[in-house]
Amino acid sequence: MRKDTGMSEQTKIPHLVIVGAGFGGLRAARALKNKPVEVTLVDRNNFHLFQPLLYQVATSTISSNEIAYPVRSTLRGMRNVHFHLGGVDCIDLDNRYIMTERGPISYDMLVLAVGGETNYFGMESVRQNSIGLKDLSDATRIRNHLLSQFEQAAHEPDSQKRKAMLTFVIVGGGPTGVESAGAVSELIRLVLSKDYPNLNIGDVRVILLEAMGKVLANMPEELSKATARALERKHVELQFGTAVAAYDGRVIRLKSGETIETNTLIWAAGVRASRLLDTLGLEQDRAGRVKVEPTLQVPGRPEVFVIGDAASFIDKDGNPLPMIAPVAMQQATIAAKNIVRRIEGQPLEEFTYRDPGVMATIGRNQAVAHVWGLKFRGFIAWLMWLGVHILQLIGFRNRLAVLIDWAWAYIFYERANRIIGPS
Amino acid sequence: MRKDTGMSEQTKIPHLVIVGAGFGGLRAARALKNKPVEVTLVDRNNFHLFQPLLYQVATSTISSNEIAYPVRSTLRGMRNVHFHLGGVDCIDLDNRYIMTERGPISYDMLVLAVGGETNYFGMESVRQNSIGLKDLSDATRIRNHLLSQFEQAAHEPDSQKRKAMLTFVIVGGGPTGVESAGAVSELIRLVLSKDYPNLNIGDVRVILLEAMGKVLANMPEELSKATARALERKHVELQFGTAVAAYDGRVIRLKSGETIETNTLIWAAGVRASRLLDTLGLEQDRAGRVKVEPTLQVPGRPEVFVIGDAASFIDKDGNPLPMIAPVAMQQATIAAKNIVRRIEGQPLEEFTYRDPGVMATIGRNQAVAHVWGLKFRGFIAWLMWLGVHILQLIGFRNRLAVLIDWAWAYIFYERANRIIGPS
Repeated sequence: MRKDTGMSEQTKIPHLVIVGAGFGGLRAARALKNKPVEVTLVDRNNFHLFQPLLYQVATSTISSNEIAYPVRSTLRGMRNVHFHLGGVDCIDLDNRYIMTERGPISYDMLVLAVGGETNYFGMESVRQNSIGLKDLSDATRIRNHLLSQFEQAAHEPDSQKRKAMLTFVIVGGGPTGVESAGAVSELIRLVLSKDYPNLNIGDVRVILLEAMGKVLANMPEELSKATARALERKHVELQFGTAVAAYDGRVIRLKSGETIETNTLIWAAGVRASRLLDTLGLEQDRAGRVKVEPTLQVPGRPEVFVIGDAASFIDKDGNPLPMIAPVAMQQATIAAKNIVRRIEGQPLEEFTYRDPGVMATIGRNQAVAHVWGLKFRGFIAWLMWLGVHILQLIGFRNRLAVLIDWAWAYIFYERANRIIGPS
Repeated sequence: MRKDTGMSEQTKIPHLVIVGAGFGGLRAARALKNKPVEVTLVDRNNFHLFQPLLYQVATSTISSNEIAYPVRSTLRGMRNVHFHLGGVDCIDLDNRYIMTERGPISYDMLVLAVGGETNYFGMESVRQNSIGLKDLSDATRIRNHLLSQFEQAAHEPDSQKRKAMLTFVIVGGGPTGVESAGAVSELIRLVLSKDYPNLNIGDVRVILLEAMGKVLANMPEELSKATARALERKHVELQFGTAVAAYDGRVIRLKSGETIETNTLIWAAGVRASRLLDTLGLEQDRAGRVKVEPTLQVPGRPEVFVIGDAASFIDKDGNPLPMIAPVAMQQATIAAKNIVRRIEGQPLEEFTYRDPGVMATIGRNQAVAHVWGLKFRGFIAWLMWLGVHILQLIGFRNRLAVLIDWAWAYIFYERANRIIGPS
């Protein structure tokens, strides 16, 4: 199984394994179509997930299948690229194989695109009792939980218990937390208020907690403030400088000692790299990301590349790149090029990130965007946000389905997926 | 909690509880809008399920949310009709209350619309190892299972094991079994063959087992035969006069002693009434259905009505009506009328079933229909089938979503929901 070089011998085509079919892994695989390499793309799910819209599954606006696309469909017609469904239990970098549920797969070269997972910062009670927003089961769980709280509250005579059911806390002032808080508030005020006419809307609280002093810290001050105002207009309570210490499923205890009674804690406060990387004996940063050379290779292991959330790439200012989709996709393109160059004995290219800008939406007609060095907000930013996200979805049918659900939500103040169930 | 009469006293409005928000229960509840009765509609799910299209969720053509509609949405604007989410554990007919997870709900009148469940005819091994097709979790389970068998088969070198993975057995020659078998065969041959280009289609078998001598026994002979031929053209193997004795998850043992090696057994061979009815001490037929008067009341308990799959209503020929949606919906209308008449002290109406005809589809361009005394088949019947089912879906958005998925499937030979996951 062992190869000492990634260079192809005269008759042998090297075998590349890509672990992870997210934004980075899928793009890298597709970029290697018809190249002189056999590619095996491995993922524990049979679909690629469009994570930026997970919060919309969580708030009943769209359904799971609209943001999940079968990987095999994206690889049709690619003779040298194959999909292998399976979780990766461990990786042996010295002997060059990955171990899946179905046995080992050896490789000549490896791309680690294993992505990120929710970071609970060591708080075990929070991990157990809150819900993250990193995959479909998180999103489905949140949706079922939100709707169930309303159903229970509709029959709860005790005022304090009812308020705890109708208090929804989101932790994290980045795009995920901001989008989720806005969406939860709109779901309740625009839609559920119609399903539960006896509900006292005064009992409802949607609270966004952020440890720093502002939301969207990676955006210009002006947009950060506009976002805070927009959230407040949508009846989201903002609490800055607030950090969670523990949560038992009923009461949040803040580091300040204060408490909030709630049955719902959505944790959007941090991402760390997949814990699979912790087992590899490689140098990692505080978020668990593996440190990589400018060529995206692992120092000392030139046959291994790491991209996306899994990689810690230091930019020219000495900062690691953020854990977002555009980084993963751009790195995937360069990694794929470098793999071919390595096979052909050519010098590798160094990665440079081109920041396409940042966007976040707060709900109906409201978004902020910082692109092309310009700041946008309100309705224009919202249209840009819609357009960019629709275009990035894979598959015409998925785009059409999401467009219809968005039209449904916007025109009719409806949410098409208020189902408590497996979907 | 006890009332001796269903008649309203001068100042008191009677409380009607309807158990079950399926075709019968939901229609009965909506028919009582603005009538002089308080209605509580109870269901363990927060959505109404359009069961006839479950097999399409099972074969990845549509997704769960397209056939599930939130009950509360259907009751908006109805001041006297309320929804209560909860399973019913038991019913006390003497003291007139139902017991839910959240406690008892007393009633003056009761409608039992609890529907049917899969009938395994006492075969415990089949119950444990096969999958039914009566609710969303069944359908999602079948879909995940089908796709997983293909993923595993793609990596299985042992020919016998691979064939067991690629053998799919459906039991039951009624509309559900016929539609499922046709859909499974098309999913494999038209779509999955593209996702798994290395698959040997000769390894695949789709088998429909029927204990009687023909499929669609409740249709005219001519349509029954046309269906059998259409299934065979779609590469479904038909085995008549074949009954299952046991299934352990790997091998089906038939009553004849023969065996079939398969990892997939979809049980569409029988429906019986919900087992909740077994606890009531009422007279039931062999399928567990409660025997009712022509007015749909329970003999000796005039405040209790039973409709739909749960009721055994004997028609003029001495046969019980079939367990299908049109029966439930027509009975719901009469039961609602009779409830109002009872309150107002008027004589009750006897139920008469108007048979709208039967339809079944076998796949692309193929269906049979027996309506208005005429027989239809092929493309015309297929268009009729499409039209009737679309119109009966609740909600414009759901109809549009299903139409798009059908267009996707038909025009592009695609299946939009090939996801292994919670959705």
